Amino acid sequence: MDFRHSPRARELLALLTGFLDREVAPREEAYHRELLARQDPWVVLPVIEELKAKARAAGLWNLFLPDRDHGGAGLTNVEYAPLAEAMGRSLIASEVCNCAAPDSGNMELLLHPGTEEQRRQWLAPLLAGEIRSAFCMTEPDVASSDATNMEATAVLDGDEIVLNGREWWSTGIGHPNCRVLIFMGLTDPAADRYHQHSMVLVPLDARGVSIERMLTTMGFNDAPGGHGEVAFEDVRLPAAQALLGGAGQAFGLAQARLGPGRVHHCMRLIGLAELALELACRRATTRVAFGKPLANLGGNRERIADARIAIDQARLLVLHAAWTTARALRLADGPDEVHRGVVARLELARYGAGRWGGG
Amino acid sequence: MDFRHSPRARELLALLTGFLDREVAPREEAYHRELLARQDPWVVLPVIEELKAKARAAGLWNLFLPDRDHGGAGLTNVEYAPLAEAMGRSLIASEVCNCAAPDSGNMELLLHPGTEEQRRQWLAPLLAGEIRSAFCMTEPDVASSDATNMEATAVLDGDEIVLNGREWWSTGIGHPNCRVLIFMGLTDPAADRYHQHSMVLVPLDARGVSIERMLTTMGFNDAPGGHGEVAFEDVRLPAAQALLGGAGQAFGLAQARLGPGRVHHCMRLIGLAELALELACRRATTRVAFGKPLANLGGNRERIADARIAIDQARLLVLHAAWTTARALRLADGPDEVHRGVVARLELARYGAGRWGGG
Amino acid sequence: MDFRHSPRARELLALLTGFLDREVAPREEAYHRELLARQDPWVVLPVIEELKAKARAAGLWNLFLPDRDHGGAGLTNVEYAPLAEAMGRSLIASEVCNCAAPDSGNMELLLHPGTEEQRRQWLAPLLAGEIRSAFCMTEPDVASSDATNMEATAVLDGDEIVLNGREWWSTGIGHPNCRVLIFMGLTDPAADRYHQHSMVLVPLDARGVSIERMLTTMGFNDAPGGHGEVAFEDVRLPAAQALLGGAGQAFGLAQARLGPGRVHHCMRLIGLAELALELACRRATTRVAFGKPLANLGGNRERIADARIAIDQARLLVLHAAWTTARALRLADGPDEVHRGVVARLELARYGAGRWGGG
Amino acid sequence: MDFRHSPRARELLALLTGFLDREVAPREEAYHRELLARQDPWVVLPVIEELKAKARAAGLWNLFLPDRDHGGAGLTNVEYAPLAEAMGRSLIASEVCNCAAPDSGNMELLLHPGTEEQRRQWLAPLLAGEIRSAFCMTEPDVASSDATNMEATAVLDGDEIVLNGREWWSTGIGHPNCRVLIFMGLTDPAADRYHQHSMVLVPLDARGVSIERMLTTMGFNDAPGGHGEVAFEDVRLPAAQALLGGAGQAFGLAQARLGPGRVHHCMRLIGLAELALELACRRATTRVAFGKPLANLGGNRERIADARIAIDQARLLVLHAAWTTARALRLADGPDEVHRGVVARLELARYGAGRWGGG
Repeated sequence: MDFRHSPRARELLALLTGFLDREVAPREEAYHRELLARQDPWVVLPVIEELKAKARAAGLWNLFLPDRDHGGAGLTNVEYAPLAEAMGRSLIASEVCNCAAPDSGNMELLLHPGTEEQRRQWLAPLLAGEIRSAFCMTEPDVASSDATNMEATAVLDGDEIVLNGREWWSTGIGHPNCRVLIFMGLTDPAADRYHQHSMVLVPLDARGVSIERMLTTMGFNDAPGGHGEVAFEDVRLPAAQALLGGAGQAFGLAQARLGPGRVHHCMRLIGLAELALELACRRATTRVAFGKPLANLGGNRERIADARIAIDQARLLVLHAAWTTARALRLADGPDEVHRGVVARLELARYGAGRWGGG
Repeated sequence: MDFRHSPRARELLALLTGFLDREVAPREEAYHRELLARQDPWVVLPVIEELKAKARAAGLWNLFLPDRDHGGAGLTNVEYAPLAEAMGRSLIASEVCNCAAPDSGNMELLLHPGTEEQRRQWLAPLLAGEIRSAFCMTEPDVASSDATNMEATAVLDGDEIVLNGREWWSTGIGHPNCRVLIFMGLTDPAADRYHQHSMVLVPLDARGVSIERMLTTMGFNDAPGGHGEVAFEDVRLPAAQALLGGAGQAFGLAQARLGPGRVHHCMRLIGLAELALELACRRATTRVAFGKPLANLGGNRERIADARIAIDQARLLVLHAAWTTARALRLADGPDEVHRGVVARLELARYGAGRWGGG
Repeated sequence: MDFRHSPRARELLALLTGFLDREVAPREEAYHRELLARQDPWVVLPVIEELKAKARAAGLWNLFLPDRDHGGAGLTNVEYAPLAEAMGRSLIASEVCNCAAPDSGNMELLLHPGTEEQRRQWLAPLLAGEIRSAFCMTEPDVASSDATNMEATAVLDGDEIVLNGREWWSTGIGHPNCRVLIFMGLTDPAADRYHQHSMVLVPLDARGVSIERMLTTMGFNDAPGGHGEVAFEDVRLPAAQALLGGAGQAFGLAQARLGPGRVHHCMRLIGLAELALELACRRATTRVAFGKPLANLGGNRERIADARIAIDQARLLVLHAAWTTARALRLADGPDEVHRGVVARLELARYGAGRWGGG
Repeated sequence: MDFRHSPRARELLALLTGFLDREVAPREEAYHRELLARQDPWVVLPVIEELKAKARAAGLWNLFLPDRDHGGAGLTNVEYAPLAEAMGRSLIASEVCNCAAPDSGNMELLLHPGTEEQRRQWLAPLLAGEIRSAFCMTEPDVASSDATNMEATAVLDGDEIVLNGREWWSTGIGHPNCRVLIFMGLTDPAADRYHQHSMVLVPLDARGVSIERMLTTMGFNDAPGGHGEVAFEDVRLPAAQALLGGAGQAFGLAQARLGPGRVHHCMRLIGLAELALELACRRATTRVAFGKPLANLGGNRERIADARIAIDQARLLVLHAAWTTARALRLADGPDEVHRGVVARLELARYGAGRWGGG
């Protein structure tokens, strides 16, 4: 048992944290202040492109991508994890290092099973940080945590594929550089349940695609990427160019994509949690009430200890999940309750409970 | 990062779980039933000695002890951890493999800093599983989680040391084979706070030592070891033979002893938690109410998932603590609240809060 | 809205608390110490009979019974509630005032629908505190929180009724004065689900009744009443004398009995919680660690505040339930999860969800 | 004990809920949609004035005010409570019925101890719903939950009073009709701690008052009232007209004002919680996933039951607090932790712990 990261991961982590401390952190507050003050926040401020150029020059680019031949850092998921955590402390670092969701997962899909043509058209500019992308698989009218509910369709018609449906929480679709999205829809209801859906590459300017509104979460618009509600009305595309990995392959692709993506996501959130705890501690040691720093009032020290323990446990659990292969990661995305249902099913299956449904 | 246990640990774990499944588990229920049915439960039932002999013959003996020269298994703390977890699934396995608390910690103290004479007299029979031992540092009249509260005394008088005080929750003192205890007391109030107390080896039959009653926890007496309240009245011992590591050395010794001991303890409890979850799952899949197995009622699957996650997180945290050196383990024993206070102090110290007290 | 108790309730409460402070509290610790010290704890110590006589003389007797004609105090359930709370602070007060479960509920059943003969034989000595009783409706082999699971039988055979089955958690059955129990069993599986079961009065010395063992809860035997596991083997009784309220009437009787009983039980527990909080506060203000009383360490004051709020809220909720008639009380007894299921069903029914099962 | 509301409260409640169902609820969604769509949300939409006129005509006006001579409904706090709950289900009802905070508390202060002149100038238009008001007592630079921290000053200079300081979370100050605010500041640091501060009536257009920015809570601006950060720079006012209740009287006035206000606030939030639970139940019975309505998945029914119990308990606790006089309400406003500290202090004081500080 050895909890140390690999030499390559440690080396990149040192490089990355140095860059974040030196280049990103000092400019982040001004960035957010400027964005908040703008009438139109759906813009790329110059500082972002400037930092992207610096990150790329420093070799801190596409760190998430295991494939060195295509410009990735060649890291395993467990090696990338501490880098994702470090970037998670900043709200712009992932974009600056071209490691932001949903681009990272989309790039992996374009690499495998993307065709040469698809890679040329979409992967190359994504790897270069010239364009951004979105992913559309959540529908307003049904509980999308149950994939069998999906109502959006991707129907083959001769050598074309025709998309219809409505999606929301399409993250990143408001970004001015967003040019392409991946759409999931029902292609063949008669196929077995794991081969009914397809993934389709859709240029954002395709006829029939319209962003109807940008949503807010807890009152925030998360500009400039945001989360959109998108209508697809008879969007007609050449199937050979648009289909990702063939008709009916979406389920397998989604599992492969969501597994590593979830580790990235968790690690970024752990970085954010570390930042939150640091801010809380700084506040607790400097703010005074009733003659004492807040840290010495009531149960505040216990809260700090609980937060430290929770963060450390979460990090270890995610690293362990990243280290054990596909099984633990073979969870469909969705709400906590669904994830806990899967954990319970795996646990009960050890005692012969495999036959029962989801409770 | 590598979460695998070492080859040596895995080999011993396989040997141990085989032994526990084959020899211990099938006899455990009968053992507890017989003990509960007895008027006098402060006995060693023959099955224990029989299993001890088998464990020793199988090389599953003194696994906790790092020192191979003295018959230990030569494992690091992180290698021993999975063995402690496996033994924790049984209420007798630790004793059967001569790895039970408080003997294990006491044996480490006798090895270092015990003298040749102390080792000959007490360590040898403990290592052989012929006698058992106790540790006395919790006093009824003061909050012992604050070591400065300690009222028991261990005063030098010529070449003798004289003990006075009252201790309780002295675990294992009711065992018929208990022959020796380690006593902690105040020797020199004028010394600095880390050199005021001493540890003293006390034969259980020393004049002035009396077990006044055995205590229960949640109604259980935990026989045959139990937890005793013990009075020390002018217990007079030759200092050279009785003092462990010299007068005033108790604080440092306690820290060294409690660190690894806490890892052992946590891992045993994780084993017990695994057993509890297994029993809950077996019950949940076989017991039926309202036409369904309990697992499919209400929030029970979420409870199972939460338990699985909590256990996995606790195990990872303990393994990580066992793997990082002394720092994280340098916690005084005591209630959760005190431990959380220490975690908070370490956390806040990163932001310059070192000057403040315990809140 | 008026939160004051009625003048009659306040008058009795003052009388009762005076009696408890003066007569019961000073003798309670000695009582428990003596009981714990006995080899055989299944006894009525003389102090109990002495205190019963005093309580009866003081008019603090059968306070739970609404019916004044039969020696009850004539209180509504909401008036009795504060008296139950006051008695709950002591572990013997309910017995001393002849208000202990399960006698209180059994007496109500004997009053209605008991026959003249049943009242004469069993109600009279129960009201006089000369005998005690038990109630048997929980079976080891099935989840008894689902009444349709019940496997015990009460079969009519000519003018006799024949009982078979196994019950456990039969509270009070170990009491030396226990003479009678009420048994619930399946009489007519062909009847509608609310008329399948019967309640039967069973003398404890009836042929075929055997107490197989006394159980412990969290290690405690709760002597001298305790909780027993009881076998019923071809227990044959004259149906006219033994049946309570006619064959197939058990469901309705259980509902009527459990409603007020649950209020009594909750209020007693609230009294116990008040005592626990008082002991915690006394400890927190006198015990010192790290130079401060425990009350001033960490989050302890918040814990005290949370406990105070939780107790006050629980009391108000129970009083409100006692004040609103049967509906809220029409809950089958059983585990928390079942109760919460009923609350959720009532809540969802407001939005047309009545058709769905228990989830 | 009687949990029924008074006939007068029930009559007004029926009138109010009928009005809310008929007039307010059908127009609320459109109102919020329109406000969200506006570039400038700091406006009074016509529907508000229209509904205010209808509420006033229906006698649903100034319900919070106990004083009938000044146009109040003549209700006690406990009678007003269910009306506040009913209004809390809507985000506009309190304003529509001229019962919104902070106006309600400010009107009570203007009534007592306001002078004839102060009533004429500010109370009359507030009672008529022609203007609105704000209350400023929270400072950005110090923890205002500890009143002794207050840094804003209200210094007498001849027959003038001069204000300096910075306040934030000044609720309602962004409302287009806001004309007056009440400012709290330090007047005499040499006085005893309960007589150091003054309350001052400040016209919003007084020279030296400037709203520096409007704040957001969880991303929401809460327009059109909002929460402002306000600078006071040498604001000079005639003391006789501006001082509320005399110099140094702020502490007593704040206690009197905050007590009833907190009951109003809690009851409105309970109304909002009821609405949230209703929406959750409607969703849970209509939304389907994995072949079942959400209500039948996992632990959702237990969550619904827990929410129902928590709401009922909170309501009973608030009603009980409203019914018992000043004592329970004599809490300084502020964070939960401070309130729990007060509850703990009261609890511990019963056991002689009065001398100790806040922990």
